[in-house]
Amino acid sequence: MAALTLREIVAKLGGEAVGEVGAPLTGVATLDSAGPGDIAFLANPKYRGRLATTRAGAVILGPGDRDAAAMPRIVSDNPYAYYARTVALFHPIPPVRAGIHPFAQVDASASVDAAAEIGAFVVIGAGASVGAGAAIGSHCALGDGVAIGAGTRLHPRVTIYPGCSVGARCIVHSGVVIGADGFGMAREAGAWVKIPQVGAVRIGDDVEIGANTTIDRGALDDTVIEDGVKLDNLIQVAHNCVIGAHTVIAGCTGISGSVTIGRHCMIGGGVGFVGHIEICDHVTISGMSLITKSITKPGTYTSAIPFMPHAEWLRNAVHLRHLDAIAAEVRKLSGEADD
Amino acid sequence: MAALTLREIVAKLGGEAVGEVGAPLTGVATLDSAGPGDIAFLANPKYRGRLATTRAGAVILGPGDRDAAAMPRIVSDNPYAYYARTVALFHPIPPVRAGIHPFAQVDASASVDAAAEIGAFVVIGAGASVGAGAAIGSHCALGDGVAIGAGTRLHPRVTIYPGCSVGARCIVHSGVVIGADGFGMAREAGAWVKIPQVGAVRIGDDVEIGANTTIDRGALDDTVIEDGVKLDNLIQVAHNCVIGAHTVIAGCTGISGSVTIGRHCMIGGGVGFVGHIEICDHVTISGMSLITKSITKPGTYTSAIPFMPHAEWLRNAVHLRHLDAIAAEVRKLSGEADD
Amino acid sequence: MAALTLREIVAKLGGEAVGEVGAPLTGVATLDSAGPGDIAFLANPKYRGRLATTRAGAVILGPGDRDAAAMPRIVSDNPYAYYARTVALFHPIPPVRAGIHPFAQVDASASVDAAAEIGAFVVIGAGASVGAGAAIGSHCALGDGVAIGAGTRLHPRVTIYPGCSVGARCIVHSGVVIGADGFGMAREAGAWVKIPQVGAVRIGDDVEIGANTTIDRGALDDTVIEDGVKLDNLIQVAHNCVIGAHTVIAGCTGISGSVTIGRHCMIGGGVGFVGHIEICDHVTISGMSLITKSITKPGTYTSAIPFMPHAEWLRNAVHLRHLDAIAAEVRKLSGEADD
Repeated sequence: MAALTLREIVAKLGGEAVGEVGAPLTGVATLDSAGPGDIAFLANPKYRGRLATTRAGAVILGPGDRDAAAMPRIVSDNPYAYYARTVALFHPIPPVRAGIHPFAQVDASASVDAAAEIGAFVVIGAGASVGAGAAIGSHCALGDGVAIGAGTRLHPRVTIYPGCSVGARCIVHSGVVIGADGFGMAREAGAWVKIPQVGAVRIGDDVEIGANTTIDRGALDDTVIEDGVKLDNLIQVAHNCVIGAHTVIAGCTGISGSVTIGRHCMIGGGVGFVGHIEICDHVTISGMSLITKSITKPGTYTSAIPFMPHAEWLRNAVHLRHLDAIAAEVRKLSGEADD
Repeated sequence: MAALTLREIVAKLGGEAVGEVGAPLTGVATLDSAGPGDIAFLANPKYRGRLATTRAGAVILGPGDRDAAAMPRIVSDNPYAYYARTVALFHPIPPVRAGIHPFAQVDASASVDAAAEIGAFVVIGAGASVGAGAAIGSHCALGDGVAIGAGTRLHPRVTIYPGCSVGARCIVHSGVVIGADGFGMAREAGAWVKIPQVGAVRIGDDVEIGANTTIDRGALDDTVIEDGVKLDNLIQVAHNCVIGAHTVIAGCTGISGSVTIGRHCMIGGGVGFVGHIEICDHVTISGMSLITKSITKPGTYTSAIPFMPHAEWLRNAVHLRHLDAIAAEVRKLSGEADD
Repeated sequence: MAALTLREIVAKLGGEAVGEVGAPLTGVATLDSAGPGDIAFLANPKYRGRLATTRAGAVILGPGDRDAAAMPRIVSDNPYAYYARTVALFHPIPPVRAGIHPFAQVDASASVDAAAEIGAFVVIGAGASVGAGAAIGSHCALGDGVAIGAGTRLHPRVTIYPGCSVGARCIVHSGVVIGADGFGMAREAGAWVKIPQVGAVRIGDDVEIGANTTIDRGALDDTVIEDGVKLDNLIQVAHNCVIGAHTVIAGCTGISGSVTIGRHCMIGGGVGFVGHIEICDHVTISGMSLITKSITKPGTYTSAIPFMPHAEWLRNAVHLRHLDAIAAEVRKLSGEADD
């Protein structure tokens, strides 16, 4: 890890350096764990008190906190984003090692850019393409006709089924499965007839997909993930969903078929969506909520219930089976009281 | 994609063709997106109005809608299943390419049918068998003694632990893990002693298993998935479960150990089952419900709570902690009112 | 499977053998399914009645049940743990086959103990190390600098990202992903800036991790799984979590970032934790609960709601949207009643 001075950091990332700008810093750390060689950051005002106790050699903070610290500092309008970029300066992504591993199986009709890296034990199907600067990790399986954009990184063990595409500068984590068959079948005489899933998955640019997440191909039309979407781990996106640009979805969320989620939404972890509904832009959903119908107004929505000590829960939850009777009794009493 | 006429379709699939039966069709599409070369379908009466506006060249519909459209059409008792089969006609599954990839590792004692396809970087253990017409995708790992039935397709990156079996004509999607150890341990002196899981997983015929789903091996007896079961993505089936024939389970559902689910059940997404319970045949469970005890009567069961705008939820949910007090107060008031 | 007598079993595992100790037993089974060649066990008093009907050749039971059976038996203070060890006697883990498969790709700078087994199509990065008696299953990908402790077994298709470590005697099941990037990003101008995740994952000794579970690397500091933790399948552990020693977590649970869970906790399946909270030692959480704040007192906690027939649920759940009004009305009526 190379050392950087405040002067060098602001030269690359902008912002205003205050105080000693020539001392070498060797890493980024939290206010709590930073040492004299580290630069820390203050993005959440509730941690402001830690400025007094931190051992950090420098700190990134917002204009309002400009004078809240005496140590060398960088003032930025968005200290959290600045912190993100500072970490990237100290930890540059290893460069792509262009070339195809001798133990990769690349179909003769596939088109792999000379500046792409193809790892060991990778399989790339007929007519597939991999863009410049892309890196395909070991054990990835790209089906026939798959297209991977420039600068996209697939970590080891990613499967992309035939005909699906991933845009530029995406990051796809290990275990992701893109383009498996949607869950579609028709009932007939007590059994199920498979509906072939002949749509694909189309993923935009700058998308990140977390480990072991699955995105199914469409039945007839495509499943679509727009630019800048960020998906956490172990998420299920069913066939024919559309996830709008710059929406973020936390882990373990399940999205049923043909759900359209707008742009700039923030979906908590463990959320469920029933099928065939539409969520407008700028919606936030609290963790573990079940969304049973379309949402047409931006805002925050919730359906979780508070946890309690189990004994208390036993006493309370039993009444959920009788809410209707309780409500009826209250109505009746109110009526009587009004008499 | 080959062109097909209505005449050719009904010759293969049955049903009654009405109107022009000789025009070439090149694909299947929804009523909304179909063009003149497509055949569409009407399976849900709520979309009947779209018959008037669709640009489809032909349509599949039920006997009751026989005269609801003027365009060339196929009348079928089950238009949705007919649609499924029509898609399959237009998109035949690529034939198995019999043979073992030179970069597969097949144990000398394994028995691979000459008409099976074994992909690149596959590992097949001692005493395993792969039936005729089966296809094992790249990077699959089949343990010792695994048996794969005729016509079954494993997509890339499926793991089947030693001793487990999959029937005929199954489809197993990428990332599936069959036969990992069930979650069993005995507490001793504050730590946990592993209980070796020495049962297996037995999967019937015509089963489909979605991406990244996991099915654990039994502790002593086997975990069993019966014929015709369809499992979506990211489902957890714990040790010693039995899933009855033709039951379908949507994504992200978790089934605890020793749960028996009947035949012809429909389980929503994100559902949880506590262990050691029994669900009878023909039960439907709504998404994200928690099933805490056995169900002995067919029907639909639910435990989800409705979502609300967050501010509204805050006002309402707080009372869940005091339902018992509210109910007691209502009882008291009712008693007083009766005086 | 070798035959063992009661005499041989108690010689290896301790406990008291009662009755005929020289008859050969060939396996372990439940009281219900055992035959004369099997040894069964009684760990849960509710099954005591089955002692009268079992066909088992012998049984493991607790001191209180010493005389509840006439058949040959082993009396142990902890019959369930004794059963676990007995199964292990009958089903010893196949020994590690030391050596590196010719189709593995091991970096020249990696250090693989001569007594470790490296499977087919494994990739091991620069500077990685694998301890004595460890077994790395086929298709595993170990990044640069990964450390695997002695006696640890990775089943096929496990990914460990660079810089992460796994202790001794761990079991990691197929599909597990350790060290993928945590879900961290900073908002800027309506889009998201990735926060590089430069912490690692550190896993202690005697940890078991279920199939397709994911454990993300820390943002700056490490994600930590302490000794003896047991994780089931399809669990998500987000960045910077700490899971205390000997805690067990059931499948499909999702743990948000920077959650600290104490020692000796038991977490049910499908549970969700919001981020940045702390759970003390010896806490039990019921399945599918959502934990929204720190827990400082040992005990059992729950937030699930009881399931009902759907029609009944429809009648009751609607009132959840109006609990505040109901509570207010009850308060009002109580006030009036007190007048």
